[in-house]
Amino acid sequence: MTRRLTLSQSIYHDLCVSACRSVGIHSEHDILEWVSQRTAANNYSVRIKPLDQLSGWSIDDVSGDLRHHSGKFFQVEGLSVEVKSDVSRSWLQPIINQPEVGILGFICQELDGVLHFLVQAKMEPGNINVTQISPTVQATRSNYTQVHGGRRPAFVEFFIDDMPGRHIVLDQLQSEQGTRYLKKRNRNIIVVVESGVSIELTDDYRWVTLGQLQNLMRFPDLVHLDCRSIIGSISFRGFSGDESDFDYSGSIGEFQSKLRGSIESKFGRRSSSVVPIHSWITGLKCKTEISVLRVPLRDVSSWSYDCGEIKHISGAFFSIIGVEVTASNREVPGWSQPLIRATEGGILGLLCQVRDGVLKFLVQALVEPGLIDILELAPTVQCTPANYLTGIRSELPYLADFMMTADSSRIRFDSILSDEGGRFFHTRQRHLVVELSEGDQIAVPENYRWMTLGQIQHMASFSNSVNIELRSILSCLSVAKSDIW
Amino acid sequence: MTRRLTLSQSIYHDLCVSACRSVGIHSEHDILEWVSQRTAANNYSVRIKPLDQLSGWSIDDVSGDLRHHSGKFFQVEGLSVEVKSDVSRSWLQPIINQPEVGILGFICQELDGVLHFLVQAKMEPGNINVTQISPTVQATRSNYTQVHGGRRPAFVEFFIDDMPGRHIVLDQLQSEQGTRYLKKRNRNIIVVVESGVSIELTDDYRWVTLGQLQNLMRFPDLVHLDCRSIIGSISFRGFSGDESDFDYSGSIGEFQSKLRGSIESKFGRRSSSVVPIHSWITGLKCKTEISVLRVPLRDVSSWSYDCGEIKHISGAFFSIIGVEVTASNREVPGWSQPLIRATEGGILGLLCQVRDGVLKFLVQALVEPGLIDILELAPTVQCTPANYLTGIRSELPYLADFMMTADSSRIRFDSILSDEGGRFFHTRQRHLVVELSEGDQIAVPENYRWMTLGQIQHMASFSNSVNIELRSILSCLSVAKSDIW
Repeated sequence: MTRRLTLSQSIYHDLCVSACRSVGIHSEHDILEWVSQRTAANNYSVRIKPLDQLSGWSIDDVSGDLRHHSGKFFQVEGLSVEVKSDVSRSWLQPIINQPEVGILGFICQELDGVLHFLVQAKMEPGNINVTQISPTVQATRSNYTQVHGGRRPAFVEFFIDDMPGRHIVLDQLQSEQGTRYLKKRNRNIIVVVESGVSIELTDDYRWVTLGQLQNLMRFPDLVHLDCRSIIGSISFRGFSGDESDFDYSGSIGEFQSKLRGSIESKFGRRSSSVVPIHSWITGLKCKTEISVLRVPLRDVSSWSYDCGEIKHISGAFFSIIGVEVTASNREVPGWSQPLIRATEGGILGLLCQVRDGVLKFLVQALVEPGLIDILELAPTVQCTPANYLTGIRSELPYLADFMMTADSSRIRFDSILSDEGGRFFHTRQRHLVVELSEGDQIAVPENYRWMTLGQIQHMASFSNSVNIELRSILSCLSVAKSDIW
Repeated sequence: MTRRLTLSQSIYHDLCVSACRSVGIHSEHDILEWVSQRTAANNYSVRIKPLDQLSGWSIDDVSGDLRHHSGKFFQVEGLSVEVKSDVSRSWLQPIINQPEVGILGFICQELDGVLHFLVQAKMEPGNINVTQISPTVQATRSNYTQVHGGRRPAFVEFFIDDMPGRHIVLDQLQSEQGTRYLKKRNRNIIVVVESGVSIELTDDYRWVTLGQLQNLMRFPDLVHLDCRSIIGSISFRGFSGDESDFDYSGSIGEFQSKLRGSIESKFGRRSSSVVPIHSWITGLKCKTEISVLRVPLRDVSSWSYDCGEIKHISGAFFSIIGVEVTASNREVPGWSQPLIRATEGGILGLLCQVRDGVLKFLVQALVEPGLIDILELAPTVQCTPANYLTGIRSELPYLADFMMTADSSRIRFDSILSDEGGRFFHTRQRHLVVELSEGDQIAVPENYRWMTLGQIQHMASFSNSVNIELRSILSCLSVAKSDIW
């Protein structure tokens, strides 16, 4: 037991060091080239098809719900939501009901003295660019119990079977999009496999350092949301590395120096500094009453089946479309499925500022109907501005306009990244980190709070505390040098 | 902000010191006498009455559910439960549905250099001994929003209004009994009020140290479950005190010395030592499917309304009875309400052992239908043996017999303590802590785990991780000297 703890501590240290390093066994250039090659090497086609012509799927005559004839995979149903707090709101919407817990997992191994993460170049039907850099394994329970009748996903045994030389360094149930999924969670998991264990790779897999993977998030639509979900759950306390790993010159370097400080300043000397955060969340949960009822999709007013899609009468929010897929490197050669296509122009914005000498991030506690426990920590801004032009919703959320019009000198990260292409069709969010000048004053409404990165990561170490949008943007906060930007 | 953190840290330190001290402004003897005096000074009568003659309450003609005519307070409904894991089970049962979040709160203040907790001698209709030592405030939302039409509970403003000189040191949403309540949580909260703020007390209130309160848990049915719920949520990391606060001679003292070690050994050097615990819980949650559906109470087979009560045909588990109450010191002078009366002989047992030089506790991850998120950490044994004699359930739970027949030389704590008398009638659990000899081997099934007290307290610092039964028995683990035993 003692030995296990020691090992685990040293692995966690390795993981932190890996997050500082951009020198892996492949360069970032090579990784980019590899993704292009994989896209070219495989055949993959996606055709949009009306939902009522989708093989294996049907719209229920009575309820209007959309489901697969096997009863597996997922259903699209209706949801009736009522939120009572200072302001009360109620609405109806379609929602994805997928009651099984999937696995999102990275295998790590030390190569040339640095911990590497095993990534996969994976095609998904909703990807705007066909192939994205995905975790070692993304598998729904249907996948790995082979209800498809297809192949078992590669490497899944590293996550579901105990084996010698394998050490779990992160293993959490984390939420998916609470506005799209009903109580959906995935098991976000990182395992480190000792160097002695040989891992055979096909051409679809490559080893990268954590720092490289984070640097690649500056490229649009390249690093998959499921990578970001897992990385955004890591706590880097005890973060370290040789000084040679860092380059604090230039504006990116200066920001990275502040990031390191914000990670380490988690607690002061005692864990009591998180008591006010717990108290704030508890208070908000106590004053918020939320009622979430499943209803037949047919009863969801303002939404209808029209021209082969399920859509809102205004054209806003999202629609549900059908696609027919053929692929040469997936568990099954072809299939049909529904996908969610969202309004373009979504934004996830995180505002930060040096306050009392430490970089802090303005997060909000956001109520979403599909969450397990009322609300989770979310980015400063999480919205799709176009949805506010329909007249259905009134003004833009707090700070949305402020973030989108920020001067370029204040922008620390800005990249368009995709939602996962297994459920979402060409759905992308601008990930934007803006640093407010020191001393600038900004109002902090009751459901917003300044927190250090260390505090946010502490909260993320428990399930159902940090939403997937915040995890996604946290994962982009890299302290590694890059060889390509 | 910096100042606030420093203050909060020092308050947390004071709280830990208070837990070591048994010297307060009143002696433990005086507290015992005060409780007797309060019981004598107030008029309080409780009469059992058939449910269908209970003023303000009625059994719904169609559903059979039991509810108050105002629609407030709570309802007794039916629940259909199906749990699928290695072994699958399904059953129907009555459940309490009380969708509002109550407040369980302590006010603390430094008196004569030691932090004291403000307790109340409170009568509740289900108390076997009329009066128990209760937190400063126990208030349902109905109470403090005055839906009763009665008085607002004393001191509730310290918990719901922000005020100068008040510091929150604990504020969590914690579960109630998951076998009796449907998703019920209370806000467990401790506030420290600076010495300058004057607090006027009536005869029903007294200041005690945390150590005194814990020592009084050795008396049967004296310290209320809601006190234990809150105290069991405290993390004592950084625990300290003058050596003069401790007396490590004698068997209790030796055990207390081990307890201190078990609190401090929380983490080793890094927080990574809790990763295996999170991973274990995540794995168990992933493999457990639970379906919980509300059904009309009339459809709960094997349960019926009989002789003025709702009861199981076997007489086992629990029954729902009615009581009529008159009281001279409560918010309203009289009322009627249903109460749950459980089978006698319930046991909450916690097994501990020095392992690798540190005292560890064997906890289980227990699935309960009313919990928010499938399962929570629970004591080694949590059961009512008499329910296993009915033929409905087969063998006693793991280690139940072992704990109940433990040699007295291995028993470190043994006290009969009550469930809260606002909902439960004369319902008591034996709280039993047994220390296994060092080196003795015991099997650890997949859903059990040895943890240090520091690790358990770390888990308890997040909501919905440690069930009320485990919090109750954790609260009994005192390191204070006592002047009465």
